[in-house]
Amino acid sequence: MAVLVVGSVAFDTVRTPFGAGEEVLGGSAAYFALAASFFTEVRLLAAVGEDFREEDAALLREHGVDLRGLTREPGRTFRWEGEYGYDLNNPRTLRTELGVFAGFRPRVPEAYRDSEVVFLANIDPEIQSEVLGQTRSPMLVACDTMNFWIERKRDALIRTLSRVDALLINDGEARQLTAEPNLVRAAHAIRDLGPRTVVIKRGEYGALMFRDGSVFSAPAYPLENVLDPTGAGDSFAGGFTGYLARTRDFSDEAMRRAVSFGSVMASLNVEDFSLRRLARTSRREVEERYGAFKHLTHFETID
Amino acid sequence: MAVLVVGSVAFDTVRTPFGAGEEVLGGSAAYFALAASFFTEVRLLAAVGEDFREEDAALLREHGVDLRGLTREPGRTFRWEGEYGYDLNNPRTLRTELGVFAGFRPRVPEAYRDSEVVFLANIDPEIQSEVLGQTRSPMLVACDTMNFWIERKRDALIRTLSRVDALLINDGEARQLTAEPNLVRAAHAIRDLGPRTVVIKRGEYGALMFRDGSVFSAPAYPLENVLDPTGAGDSFAGGFTGYLARTRDFSDEAMRRAVSFGSVMASLNVEDFSLRRLARTSRREVEERYGAFKHLTHFETID
Repeated sequence: MAVLVVGSVAFDTVRTPFGAGEEVLGGSAAYFALAASFFTEVRLLAAVGEDFREEDAALLREHGVDLRGLTREPGRTFRWEGEYGYDLNNPRTLRTELGVFAGFRPRVPEAYRDSEVVFLANIDPEIQSEVLGQTRSPMLVACDTMNFWIERKRDALIRTLSRVDALLINDGEARQLTAEPNLVRAAHAIRDLGPRTVVIKRGEYGALMFRDGSVFSAPAYPLENVLDPTGAGDSFAGGFTGYLARTRDFSDEAMRRAVSFGSVMASLNVEDFSLRRLARTSRREVEERYGAFKHLTHFETID
Repeated sequence: MAVLVVGSVAFDTVRTPFGAGEEVLGGSAAYFALAASFFTEVRLLAAVGEDFREEDAALLREHGVDLRGLTREPGRTFRWEGEYGYDLNNPRTLRTELGVFAGFRPRVPEAYRDSEVVFLANIDPEIQSEVLGQTRSPMLVACDTMNFWIERKRDALIRTLSRVDALLINDGEARQLTAEPNLVRAAHAIRDLGPRTVVIKRGEYGALMFRDGSVFSAPAYPLENVLDPTGAGDSFAGGFTGYLARTRDFSDEAMRRAVSFGSVMASLNVEDFSLRRLARTSRREVEERYGAFKHLTHFETID
């Protein structure tokens, strides 16, 4: 199955205690698309400016990402500048320049409208709803969001969520959305808003997935060299959604494997700046790390 | 195998957003002993004051804990007073009254000296070493510590660690002990100090175990009702050490099961104040939660 992703394609300037990236390719849709491309056909919907570089488009294209929905608009590409301290969990945003993203109104190309799986990356929930309105009954809709939209566009976000099958959200944002400090209760409260599946991302602590009567806990892979956490959540979403689209299996067992593949893609992504690590990853390496994940969490039942 | 534990037996006054406990039974050795008693014979070494309550001794005795090493000294029992905010990860200590614990010099009873497994709970590392010196070559020595000893008695702690097989330590304290922000590297640095097995406790995020070339990640059980996290780490240690002592198996597979039983006991303990939840736990309930843990982390390999 093909996955349609709508979100940002950006130039990021990032500093971490371990290095820096200057105007490097980033954005939620770019991270998602490259991660998902290891599993299935990906269709990207986003806008960039006149300054967008051909080499960045080429990287996505070489991984089979369909760029017919990537439009070049008059103006500059979206830019984000941030820095991380040693804990690497939350960046400090130094500057945001919306550029062409400010006036972004999505027009889903005809060739994308039959996409069976849709991922609404972290953008304005009104745009998320508009995109859904231009697709023909996808089998699975997954979605991300952030504190900014929870504060500023709560009603629009609630409307989007009523049409979403799986919400992927940070722990702090799950608490903020539901005013519920306990994560188990927060997940149940989100399920009451629509999404049958709630995946709560906890950065270096992994992810929890809540479904009907089932909870799954996936650790983050313990890494010696985390260079840049930017895009970890979007790479996670790419592995998660891409795997589900490939298998066309939305059972609880498949969802658990999907969370594990999400963790695999996030763990690879943070080992270098920008999309560099994913760009040099092979399918074999993805499978090997999946096996290492399995060993990381394996323990035997008792008799 | 019998487990010898040395540590504190205390009266705690605790406030959390969900309630309070006033002068309730606590202390690292008490939590450890009750948790370990579900698995094996436990021998407790500690001092209490003249104000110690017979009902508290009776609770431990009913669970088969050997109290021949619990001495009653002139003075008051150790008291700790603290409160937790909504994040429930780190308490604020409001008051500490050492009482008889200030002059505590351990004398290991003759009947305890052949203990094959020893747990050195979080006390002065000089006392930990003294206790080890009074035992006859135990097969497994596990140990806990805290920021206070890392700061104040670093050299004594390093000497203790050189004789320890398994260190159980918080993530923040692992970083502090090794001056290494990355947990994987911190664990390797601790292994260089002596312990072949390093278990890093991360509160509501679970635990990581590092051994020769093997890493195991265990989540914390996601709970809707955490009333009081006091004693979670000591209950974890009780499940971990108690299970190893029962099975007499120190292989990697057994250690992974032991970490999981540690998580089980901690997850039960935090569901009520003091030792109340463990006091009303059955072995069957421990096994059921172990099964739930298995399901919580289960995902299939891919072909």
